[in-house]
Formats: sequence, C-alpha cells, structure tokens
Amino acid sequence: RVLRIGLIPGDGIGREVIPAGRRILEALPSSLGLKFEFSDLHAGFETFEKTGAALPDRTVEVLRNECDGALFGAVSSPTKAVKGYSSPIVALRKKLDLYANVRPVKTVRTAAKPIDMVIVRENTEDLYVKEERTIERPDSEGGKYAEAIKRISERASSRIATMAGEIALRRQKIRDSSSSSSSIHSHPLVTITHKSNVLSQTDGLFRTASRAALSAPRFASALTIEEQIVDSMVYKLFRQPEAYDVIVAPNLYGDILSDGAAALVGSLGLVPSANVGEGFAIGEPCHGSAPDIEGKGIANPIATLRSTALMLEFLNEEDAAAKIYAAIDANLEEGKLLTPDLGGKATTEEVVQDILKKL
Amino acid sequence: RVLRIGLIPGDGIGREVIPAGRRILEALPSSLGLKFEFSDLHAGFETFEKTGAALPDRTVEVLRNECDGALFGAVSSPTKAVKGYSSPIVALRKKLDLYANVRPVKTVRTAAKPIDMVIVRENTEDLYVKEERTIERPDSEGGKYAEAIKRISERASSRIATMAGEIALRRQKIRDSSSSSSSIHSHPLVTITHKSNVLSQTDGLFRTASRAALSAPRFASALTIEEQIVDSMVYKLFRQPEAYDVIVAPNLYGDILSDGAAALVGSLGLVPSANVGEGFAIGEPCHGSAPDIEGKGIANPIATLRSTALMLEFLNEEDAAAKIYAAIDANLEEGKLLTPDLGGKATTEEVVQDILKKL
Ligand SMILES: CC(C)[C@H](C(=O)O)[C@@H](O)C(=O)O
Ligand SMILES: CC(C)[C@H](C(=O)O)[C@@H](O)C(=O)O
Repeated sequence: RVLRIGLIPGDGIGREVIPAGRRILEALPSSLGLKFEFSDLHAGFETFEKTGAALPDRTVEVLRNECDGALFGAVSSPTKAVKGYSSPIVALRKKLDLYANVRPVKTVRTAAKPIDMVIVRENTEDLYVKEERTIERPDSEGGKYAEAIKRISERASSRIATMAGEIALRRQKIRDSSSSSSSIHSHPLVTITHKSNVLSQTDGLFRTASRAALSAPRFASALTIEEQIVDSMVYKLFRQPEAYDVIVAPNLYGDILSDGAAALVGSLGLVPSANVGEGFAIGEPCHGSAPDIEGKGIANPIATLRSTALMLEFLNEEDAAAKIYAAIDANLEEGKLLTPDLGGKATTEEVVQDILKKL
Repeated sequence: RVLRIGLIPGDGIGREVIPAGRRILEALPSSLGLKFEFSDLHAGFETFEKTGAALPDRTVEVLRNECDGALFGAVSSPTKAVKGYSSPIVALRKKLDLYANVRPVKTVRTAAKPIDMVIVRENTEDLYVKEERTIERPDSEGGKYAEAIKRISERASSRIATMAGEIALRRQKIRDSSSSSSSIHSHPLVTITHKSNVLSQTDGLFRTASRAALSAPRFASALTIEEQIVDSMVYKLFRQPEAYDVIVAPNLYGDILSDGAAALVGSLGLVPSANVGEGFAIGEPCHGSAPDIEGKGIANPIATLRSTALMLEFLNEEDAAAKIYAAIDANLEEGKLLTPDLGGKATTEEVVQDILKKL
C-alpha cells in the first residue's frame, strides 16, 4: 500500500519536529508492506505574512485530492490581533470535516500516578464556528460589546460520542489481547463532559445526544457511561487522573482538558493528537510553536512521532503504529536520551536517532 | 457597626456548613466593635421543588433592602434537565450585579508546592447570559441544533480587570507590611486569560479592555501584566502554580480555572469565593452540594469560614477577616483536626470548635 502524506510544518518548532515524522515513516520495516510519498505544504503565520493567506487554497486541494493523511506542526498566534489572520488549523479541521480531535494521554515513567486516557474532542463546532459580531453603542447605552455563537448540533454530538464509544471498545480489545496485565483500567469507561447546569440547551443537547449515541446496543452492553460537569472534570482530572479512560467533550472544553491532561504527564512535548474524518487523518502534536525554544534544536520530537503513529492508526495501519509507539516507549523507559522539557540534555536529533534505532 | 448577613444554606452540605459561618461571626471578639444580625433565606433545588422558584423573590428583596452581605451554601444540579429550573446563584449574581467572583487559592501545608493566587472571575456575562435557542430542522437539512450567546462587554471587562488590579495592589501592600518574608511573590503580577486566537472579537475585547484598564497610571507603574491563552493557562497552572499571583478571566474560564486551582491545594473543601458588587458581597464556598457526603456531618467547613472572612474583607472589615484566616491557618498548620477530604477523621463540628477555640 502506498500512502501519500502531506507535510505542513507551520511555524516555529513545527519546522523542527515535522521532519522527524517523515523520517520515522521512511524507517518503518519493509515487511509491513507500506510505502510513503510526501507532499510539502504550507500554512501558518509566516505563510500568511508572505502570501496573505494563512491556509493557501493549494494546501487544502492537495490534501483533499492527493493525500491519504498529513502531519501538521504548529502555528504561531500573533501577540496582537492581525487583520485578516485566523488560525489555519481551525479552518483545516472544518474544510476537511475532520470531526474528531483524538488526544491520548499516557504516562511512561514521567508522572507520579499512572495515567492512560484519551480525550475525544469534537472538532468542528461549539465556539469554533467563529461567528462573532461587535456592537458599538454609545456609553450612555452601555458601551461596546461583542457576541460569539456557541453552536452544538445533535448530529456532531452523536457522531463524536460514537467515535468515543468505538475508541473505548478498541482500547478494551487491545487490553484484553495484551499479555501484560499492566493496564490500569479493567472496564471501559466513557465520561461525557458538559456544562448543562448553565447551558441547558446547547450543552444539554451535547449531553442527551451523546447519551443516546452511547446507548446503542453494542456500546450499552460493554461500556460504563458517566458524566462530569466541565469544572468538576478539571478538578477530578487532577485529583484522580487514573480513573479516566475515554473523555468526550465539546470543542472548547476538549481543548482545555487536553492541555490539562498534558500537564499531568510532564510535558506538552509528549502529547499527540489526530484530527480525524472519514478516511483521512492529520497528526498534530498538541504543543504550540514555542517561540522560546525555536531554532535551538531541542524541541521534543515525541509528540510529533506519536501523532504520526496515531495518524497511521486512523488509516488502519495499526501494526505500523504499534512499532512506532514501542520505540518511543523504549526511549522513555530507558530515560537516557531526553530533551530538556523532560529534564534531559538531548537534542531533537539525538532523540530522533535513538528512537529510529529502537524501531 | 451592625452588619446584617443573609444566610442561604441551599442544598446538600450547604446546610451543614453555612451555620459555621454564622457561628464564627458571632464568636468574633467584641473589641472589633462589630455586631451581626442574620436573615434566614431560601434558594436552591429543594426550594424549587417546594415552591416552584429556585430563587424566591423574597430572598432577592431581603438581600437587596435589608442586608449588608450574605453567605450562600451550595445548590444541587439535578441529574436530568428539569423544566423551569435554573441555577439560583447564577441568577443572584446578575440580579445584584455582583460583577466579580473572587477566588483566593492558597496552600497551608496541604500541597507539595506553595501556591498563593487569586482568581478574579467576571461574574455577569460570557455564556452565563444564558441566551439560548434550539432550532429543529429536518434531518435532510442537517437536523436539530442549539445555539448560545457568549457576550463580552468592554465595560464589564474593564471593570473586572480594574478589580483584579486593585486586588494585586492590595496583596502587595499586605506583603510589604507583613513582618514574615515567607511570601512567594516579590512583585505583583496580573495574568489576563482569554482565547483570542480563536475568538478575536469577544475574547479579543476582553483582552484589549483588560489591558487598557490595567494601563491606568496607578497600575502600570506598580504591576506586571501578562497574558495566557486559556488552554495554556490550565497547563501552566499545573506546571508552575507558584508563578501566579492574580489571574483575571471571563466567567466560564474563571469557573474552570478555579476548580483547577482548587485541585492543586488538595481539596475543594478549602477554597472560598466572594461574589462582589458595589458595597455588597456574598461569600460562597467553591464546592458543590456534595450528595455523596450529605448528612454525614463530615463536610469541611473551612471553605465556608474562609468565604465568611472574604465577605468581611469586601465589606471593609479587614481586621475581622484577618482573625478568621489566622484561626483557620492555625488549625491547618497543626493538622490534628482535619476532615476526611484532607485525610483526617474529624467531623465538621470538631473542626468548627477547634477553629473557634483558636480565634
Ligand atoms: C491554536 C489553537 C487555535 C488550537 C485550538 O484551540 O484548537 C490549539 O490550542 C489546539 O488545541 O490545537
Ligand atoms: C453551580 C454552577 C452554576 C456554578 C457556576 O458555574 O458558576 C459553580 O460551578 C460555581 O463555580 O459557583
């Protein structure tokens, strides 16, 4: 099977880590029967400054017409509002209908408590529809204000909950078939996160549509379903992270929860994500463009390497993905070659080489 | 000075902790020259079930016309949507224009890292305007969806940022005048939290209005101002909590951040809040009605006692507040009589008696 992968480094350390994704794909053993081709594509703030478009049409077209998947690095958020600029990754998720943002968070010797959860974030709506308006009123009438729409649909909620249910079943299957009994979960659990005590219609719909989707017979018999209000979810995430298996959330809560979960495993530099649609996936490290370490060659490549594996999982190449995960785990367990975010002194290049060696 | 305080226990453990607030006010030394009178008032889910109103008009009227401040316990969120019910505390904040929700989070021997921060949460707008609608569409047109308005005004943003700036100055003054050099902050810092990289108009307005308010001469010369995108704020909150002094945020982010900060100090049972308007304040423990421990007599009264002190601070009774805080700190530092949420075995009553003794 030949897979064509779009490579979109973006800004900052995105340019230092995305090449690692390409290299690990090229280094996969030929016994897997996989070949990779690559398309170099552009997006990001620098692209915006050069071309006037943060997400050039060509990038979207090549992804849509020629690619099977992609890797996306990171984009810089300008420190001041810039006219005409808006985040290309948010636009890309919507244009390609990558309706799920899947963020596994797992410890390998980096945290006090063992953690093994996946945050399944709805990726197309909520406040991310970006329908905003500003109303100028004289001060005597209360002054200026702005409004944004939070939109939650039954269809998107039901679709993301179904994805969460399927991921929970798949994780349990892997646990059941794995020889090691090291798993911290004995039973699959999906936790629905919302704030329906305040937003009874929007988050209320997310809640009821999720519950309805997860009461389908194949889920209902196999999964435990729970709910958490988002503020209390953040509290629990930090007090009892070991208790959570799959968390499903609307877009913005999912964004916040996944950064919180990343903090628990020690570094954003470890946490991958995949933006997943029908038959297409974009791997994307959860970290940003990290201007503070840009150009120093010390960015942790693991979030990108794990995102590469995650992309492969959603392209149904689970064996290839497993090989990459195992090489990364071996590097972390050994603990000799770690980047500074993990307390080590290794460079990006040294970590990549170590992981390629362990592949 | 005579202060009349409304007492609104609400639901669940609210009824077990609010009486502690009354008792500590009554136990304050007479040398402070303060007398307290009390009005027993109702609100909550049980009130709704009995009377059809979660927040009876009488409660609002007595607070508005007769009281100087109040203590609010907690309300139960029904596990299923209940027609006509909506949170009375959210309504109360708006009806009395209690525009700031102030949540100090501080460690006393309960956490690994010393933490000393205040979250200043806008308390009247954002998604809490609760303007929602549901649109029924046939499946062929995409199916049902719901929308909520997120509203951010220049005035409310500027007002809350000003409050945050004043709190930062006041904290620095207290640090400067205190003999102990135990403070973890040497310079006052206000961190503005938003998501303007996605919500350029609403959160963008929060950001620019906050910045403008905090560039007033009396702040600009004395404070450091920083910004954090909300997801990265949650990450930093857990990685470097000791770095934060005053955090100002729109309503929903403030809600989420304060639960996160509470997790850091070991228990929601320790974290107070005050809903503050012009010349009026309602103390409110950050925890909920906690149905799991209701009726057992083991709820931690400290969040309520601290909320009582915080209310006094905003009624300009700082000496009385300081006495209460000191008695609580003495109880925690001694560490002998702690409720189960802190790993102890004491009852609510034992902790209250110990703190009254130390007053
Ligand atoms: C950069 C930003 C627009 C983005 C988001 O909010 O989705 C990022 O935080 C993420 O989580 O991928
Ligand atoms: C009960 C709920 C409506 C409330 C809120 O969201 O404000 C609570 O979480 C709080 O923080 O006081």
